Amino acid sequence: MRIDVLTLFPNMFDGPMSESIIGKAIEKELVEIKTTNFRDYTENKHNMVDDYPFGGGAGMLLTAQPIVDSIDAIKKSQPETKKRIILMDPAGKKYDQKLAEELSQEEHLIFICGHYEGFDERIKSHVTDEVSIGDFILTGGELGAMVIIDSVVRLLPETLGNVLSNQTDSFSTGLLEHPQYTRPRSFRGEEVPEVLLSGNHAKIAEWQEKASLRKTLERRPDLLEKIELTEQQEKWLQEIKEELDE
Amino acid sequence: MRIDVLTLFPNMFDGPMSESIIGKAIEKELVEIKTTNFRDYTENKHNMVDDYPFGGGAGMLLTAQPIVDSIDAIKKSQPETKKRIILMDPAGKKYDQKLAEELSQEEHLIFICGHYEGFDERIKSHVTDEVSIGDFILTGGELGAMVIIDSVVRLLPETLGNVLSNQTDSFSTGLLEHPQYTRPRSFRGEEVPEVLLSGNHAKIAEWQEKASLRKTLERRPDLLEKIELTEQQEKWLQEIKEELDE
Repeated sequence: MRIDVLTLFPNMFDGPMSESIIGKAIEKELVEIKTTNFRDYTENKHNMVDDYPFGGGAGMLLTAQPIVDSIDAIKKSQPETKKRIILMDPAGKKYDQKLAEELSQEEHLIFICGHYEGFDERIKSHVTDEVSIGDFILTGGELGAMVIIDSVVRLLPETLGNVLSNQTDSFSTGLLEHPQYTRPRSFRGEEVPEVLLSGNHAKIAEWQEKASLRKTLERRPDLLEKIELTEQQEKWLQEIKEELDE
Repeated sequence: MRIDVLTLFPNMFDGPMSESIIGKAIEKELVEIKTTNFRDYTENKHNMVDDYPFGGGAGMLLTAQPIVDSIDAIKKSQPETKKRIILMDPAGKKYDQKLAEELSQEEHLIFICGHYEGFDERIKSHVTDEVSIGDFILTGGELGAMVIIDSVVRLLPETLGNVLSNQTDSFSTGLLEHPQYTRPRSFRGEEVPEVLLSGNHAKIAEWQEKASLRKTLERRPDLLEKIELTEQQEKWLQEIKEELDE
């Protein structure tokens, strides 16, 4: 996969995109990540990337020209790839694991990261997606782009050593993950639940699945409406509801 | 504000937490951000931070001891501050602008960033908050912590030069932001809407507010249910709905 990022702050990507799992994916050549400072594409004397909004208003807007010319330069240098051009925008489509999976199938992602107040609306005619990572305001689009890159690269085949771990994560099963415990058996007065030490795999699996259901019911009942529960799960969920009512 | 981050990858924070607005907030001493590698707090010979889950399962879990001991060390070195201890967890409370505003009032935030499969559940007895930035899986909690830090530091008084910009953002008014335009008037065949060039401030304000309402209705109708619209807004919204029905 090829990833380009258009940003005024390319140095922001140094740490997060070189450490740990993403760093290893780059080393293994599973992904190539390149940042472009779109200030280098300005055509005015002072390399200004922003200007006052028409109609007034607080703050400045990023102008269309340097960003659209950067996109064109990438298209020209990589004409053969199919591209998703993603504008980070708080009013964009909400990012989720489904979109992560979709993007992980693409061959070339281009991210546009704003700063300051906003963009000239006409930039949007040159992108394929407007995406938001959540209902909160960041100082720029960079961290949002990194979040998406991290979650997408993680899904590329061969990125994670342990394939199973992708399948048991929260959201992949549609339920929140059950509580987990490791050594020691007793830590500051808290014990590992007996059943997990029993060696009885059927009982352990039941405890884990019930705990997943209980946690999802308590914290994210919206997720239960999105998946089809098995008959067994429905029965357990009923038991859990009765326990909680007592 | 004081911020501590417990992480196995402190270098990830170098770029994002030193550039642009966050970098300036640190320079102005509005916030101090310190990372701690909790591997330094392990008590075993090989500095292992993870171990196998009781009851079986794929992958490893972070053990409680080094993380809880790191928290204790911060508490001991900064005994006077009131602390919010935030565990980054996909099953946690969904982060939003309201929580950003709440956290921006605190004096000391401590973030715990996991990696690998998950945590020993007993770590949760030592935190005040479990937070998720969205329904997607990241390789670790670091980017989520950076997202929260960025959105919180941005809200500290004096961080942003232009106070107005905080008030007109998406989510602050409860509506998505209207389209904005800057020079040139014509860009690659697309013109700035006439009204924005008219100089008629009342007409411009009306166009902007209607455009905000329309965008919110089309993209995020859920937001309209969360705010109380003025009588004028209700009327405009009705007009917009009629236009869309035609």
